[in-house]
Parts: sequence; structure tokens; C-alpha cells
Amino acid sequence: MNTRFLDACWGKPVDRTPVWLMRQAGRYLPEYMAVRSKCTFLELCKTPDLAAEVSIQPVDILGVDAAILFSDILTPVEPMGMKLDFVPGPVFEHPIRTMADVEALRIPQMEQDVPYVLETIKILRRELAGKVPLIGFGGAPFTLACYMVEGKGSKDFARIKQMMYGAPQVYAALMEKITTMDMEYLNAQIKAGAQAIQIFDTWGGILSPADYERYVLPYTTRLINGLNRTETPVIHFVKGAGAMLDTVRKAGGDVMGLDWHVNLGTARAVLGQGMAVQGNLDPTVLFAPQTVIEQEVKRVLDENAGRPGHIFNLGHGILPTVPPENARFMVDCVHRLSQK
Amino acid sequence: MNTRFLDACWGKPVDRTPVWLMRQAGRYLPEYMAVRSKCTFLELCKTPDLAAEVSIQPVDILGVDAAILFSDILTPVEPMGMKLDFVPGPVFEHPIRTMADVEALRIPQMEQDVPYVLETIKILRRELAGKVPLIGFGGAPFTLACYMVEGKGSKDFARIKQMMYGAPQVYAALMEKITTMDMEYLNAQIKAGAQAIQIFDTWGGILSPADYERYVLPYTTRLINGLNRTETPVIHFVKGAGAMLDTVRKAGGDVMGLDWHVNLGTARAVLGQGMAVQGNLDPTVLFAPQTVIEQEVKRVLDENAGRPGHIFNLGHGILPTVPPENARFMVDCVHRLSQK
Repeated sequence: MNTRFLDACWGKPVDRTPVWLMRQAGRYLPEYMAVRSKCTFLELCKTPDLAAEVSIQPVDILGVDAAILFSDILTPVEPMGMKLDFVPGPVFEHPIRTMADVEALRIPQMEQDVPYVLETIKILRRELAGKVPLIGFGGAPFTLACYMVEGKGSKDFARIKQMMYGAPQVYAALMEKITTMDMEYLNAQIKAGAQAIQIFDTWGGILSPADYERYVLPYTTRLINGLNRTETPVIHFVKGAGAMLDTVRKAGGDVMGLDWHVNLGTARAVLGQGMAVQGNLDPTVLFAPQTVIEQEVKRVLDENAGRPGHIFNLGHGILPTVPPENARFMVDCVHRLSQK
Repeated sequence: MNTRFLDACWGKPVDRTPVWLMRQAGRYLPEYMAVRSKCTFLELCKTPDLAAEVSIQPVDILGVDAAILFSDILTPVEPMGMKLDFVPGPVFEHPIRTMADVEALRIPQMEQDVPYVLETIKILRRELAGKVPLIGFGGAPFTLACYMVEGKGSKDFARIKQMMYGAPQVYAALMEKITTMDMEYLNAQIKAGAQAIQIFDTWGGILSPADYERYVLPYTTRLINGLNRTETPVIHFVKGAGAMLDTVRKAGGDVMGLDWHVNLGTARAVLGQGMAVQGNLDPTVLFAPQTVIEQEVKRVLDENAGRPGHIFNLGHGILPTVPPENARFMVDCVHRLSQK
């Protein structure tokens, strides 16, 4: 029973720094591609046996200290009434633009509408059998709203910002509804067996600190406060937020996810006591020679300076063309160099 | 004679906060599109009369306090021996990959190889006739290297990072050569009449603070130290560097350009005395209703709290679909709200 990951989430001392990788169940693994070649990405998300299989692969192949549910942050948005496609990026055919669009959204019944997610979690808990803990996850309300309003990825997010600035009542109604959905979705994951929750705010960092505080923070705070967190730590990851961690911290949670654009030691000083951190190796370091990988792992560990409450991770998802042996080597380095 | 911009660069008190916009000579202006419709982007850069015409347009139309040379950061890279196309993003057909590629690069003779840039500056100084100062500019060595090695824009910059980590001697040789070219290029602009220089490090922020310090800082520092700065302030803008301003500051220069992901007041506290700042309104605010534009301009001015040494700007280039009347309104707001 490896409790290293959960202990670190709670800020307790551990024998070796726990490590997992965002997108560790993914395209860089031939074993994942073998499963994925048989179905579409969405079919994979919606087939519990297969989703569980790819979730477990990196535990066996890389030796990471946690598994994470295989799914997509937009999975619970589809049953709100928004047809979703991947081409390969996510696309909503009818994006949200008006108050009528917001009012037409429904809050899914999780057991009926996303049964495959909850079933995948149950299979994973059974198959992992305590070997490592299972992380559930969801998108932060703002990041989900970005996709729902833009309809797809965006370079400048002009539409969501136009709504935020120009139709604040529509924006607020949308964010309220997403937050309610998100809370029910993540609590359903916890009830099904998720042992930690990571909230991905991939786009929170596109805003100024002032706009983040005004337009994002209230919703993420309500979400985190509404989760059944007694036994389930919450990791809050806002990409691109290195210069506003003091503001992001106010949302609460147990662990702050850090991208690689901030020094981990500086970040811990800003965050202060009572908040663990997760991160923050530059994902492209995994393309480097192994001597450089080892040196960069050591640097991140050195920045943490042995403080309890550090989960090693990349600063963003692992890239699809990374050699798996480099990921495995990185995991080994973290364990070897952090051994007490 | 409006010296507001230069005074602010030197940290001197001014009657009203000076303001200009990155990419102020650009596609959002119908007057620019009228000129641009007659030629390609590169032809526009290389035709001094037309380049000067579009550089002056925003001075008249928006009432900004400085003009900036119309050109592209890759203009001096082409005569190093790299054929450049815009499709519409920049593309180098033969990117730099090996030491032989680096050795084949030549340092241009600026008067012979980029005469149109120097001629544009001379025309502009004559036509502006002291109405507002003229800013020259160039790409920081790292940003130029990114384009030269990747061959085009990139999402993860895997190739430049592979070179940085895996072939550090090739990377260093390339950066040395670019830095030498850049210094001669920007000094030629100063000699031709540029009254301030902005260095754009668009991609410096893709690195961790530790990697920035190791792989970028030495070159930008050498560049800035090598400029004829006695009468010509240098603005250093590293996009995405809000969480590592303490490190970026070590490169020197007179003004730090700030994107909108950092609170301007917090940034000034980190930068300390002796460094002016430029920025940092979110460019998408210009899509908002004018009441919101005014409120956001006021917020940025409030974050500066009346300290000398603030040049108002966007946190990145103005977006091509912004209504020109909103840009004009923003400039007016800055002047009106900051009036002493």
C-alpha cells in the first residue's frame, strides 16, 4: 500500500517524494496507442474497461505513485445539452452565446448521464487494490466556460472575454450553472471512489490577476468549498498563474499545482504554510539526454528543499512524442534523489 | 514637442502618462489595410515610404505618444542567409539544426543588407519632426533563435529545447552569433535616428526561471550592454515572465515591459527603483464596452499609484479585430485619467 501521494497532499512527511505525470495515460505510450487504435477518443472515455486499462498502464510501466482516471474535462458538459466532437481538438457545434443558451443547459444526473466515469472509477479502485491511490478530476468552471463559449480552443479567447465584460449577467449565470454541475460531478467521483481530486484550470492564466479575482475566484472557491474533502484532498492547478499565486490560493484546496514558469521555492514562499505543492518540471525536459533530466529533477527537488508537502509532476501534460524510457527514468530519478 | 514618452522611460515626472500600443500600426486600422492591400507584408517592410506611412498612422488616428518603426523582428535574420516567407506566419524553409548550419550564417552589413529599415527610420524622424519620439525595435536573441531553429511558430518549442539541452555547444554558438547581429542591427537603428529601442522576447517566457537564467539571460545582458544607450532608453519585454521578473531584471535596460498576467504594482515592487515599467492592459479589454475600458484603464493606473516611470501600453499586441474607436478611447482615457 503506497500512501506516499496522499500523505504528501496532506503535508505529511514521506519516505520518497511521490511522483505522477499529467496525461500519464496518453499517446506517448505504445500500450495506450494499441488500445486507442480500436476506438475513438470519446469511445475510449465512455468504455469503462478500456478507460481503466489505460489508466493503469503508467502505474505498471513508469512506477508512478498515483493513477488518474482516464477521461476528458468536457465529458460532463455533453449531457448538459452540448454535442461534443473531437477533430482532434474539442469542438461544440452550438457554443453558448446568449442567456437563452445558458437557460437551456441542464444539470446532468451523474449516475444516469455519466455512468461510465463512475464505473471506470469503481473498476480502477478494484484493480488497483490499494497499490496506488486513484485521482479523479474535472475542469475548473472558467476553463469549461471557455470551451463552451468559444466552441473550441482559441488563441485570444475574445468571445468569452466579450461575454465577461459585455454581458456580465450572462457570464455569471453560465458560471453559476457550471459550478453547480462541477460540484455534483466531482462529488460523484469521490462517492464512486476517487481518493483525490485535481481541478484543471487550463485557461485561468489568460486573465489579469484583477480579472481572475473578479470573474473566476468566486466560482472556483464555491466549487472547492462544496466538495466532500474530509478524506479527499483537492489539487488546484491553474496554468499560467505563477505571477498571481497569492490570489489563486484564496480559492482554497490542499495542493497547488504549479506550471514550470515559476521557481518552486518562490511559489512555496508566496503560498505559505498549509498548502502543499505539485510540480513543476518543464515537460520538454523529457526530450533531453538523461544526464540533463537527472540534473533538472535535482533542481526542482532542491528548490523544494526537503519540505513536506511536495508531489513531483511535470508543469503541464507529458508531450505525445516523449520517449517512454525518459519518463520512466524521470520517475526513477525522483525516487532515488529524494530518498530519505 | 511631446517628450512624455522619453521622460517616462528615464523615470522622470510627466504631465500625463504616455501611451502607445504594441502593433499600433496594424490590421485593425482600415488605413493600414488600404496600404497593405497593395503589397505583401514583406514588401511593406522593405518599402520605406509605405513603412513610414503606416508607422505614422496611429500617431494621427489614436493620438499616441510615440511612433514605432513598422518592420518585423525577422527582417535582419533573412540577410544572415535564411530565406523567409510569411504564410501568413513566418516560415524559414531551412531551419538551423547543426553546427554547420550555424557556421554558415553571416553577420549582415546593416547599411547594405537592411537599408530599407534605416531609410524608414530617417523618413520617420523627418516626417514626425519631433511631434512624438520614434521607437526602434528588434527580437531578443532567444526569440529569434526559436524561429530560426523551429522554422516557424511552435506549440511546445521541442526543437529549440532539444538543441539547448542536447547540443548546448551548437545552441551557444547560435546565440552568440545572433546576439552579435542583434547588437549591430539595433545600434544601426539608433545611429539612423531611433530614439528608444524595444527588445521583444516573445518566447523567453516558455522557459523555467532556472533555464531562462542559464540559456537566455547571458545573451540578452550582452546585447543590452552593447547598445549605445546614453541617449536612447531600452525597453525589455519578455512575454510570460511575470513570475520571474527578478531574474529578467538582471539583463538591464531602462524599462521593463509587462504583460497583463501580473499586477503592475506587484511588478514594480519586485523590480525596485531605477527601472521604469511599460504596460499592461489585457488586449481583449478593447473588445469591451467603453465603460469597462475606462474602468480597466483606471485600474492599471491605480496599480501604478502615480509613480514616475510608467508608460501605458497593452500587455501584448493589439488584436486585428479591435474597433479602432475603442483604441482611440483607451488612449484618451489614459491621458484624461492620469492628468496631473
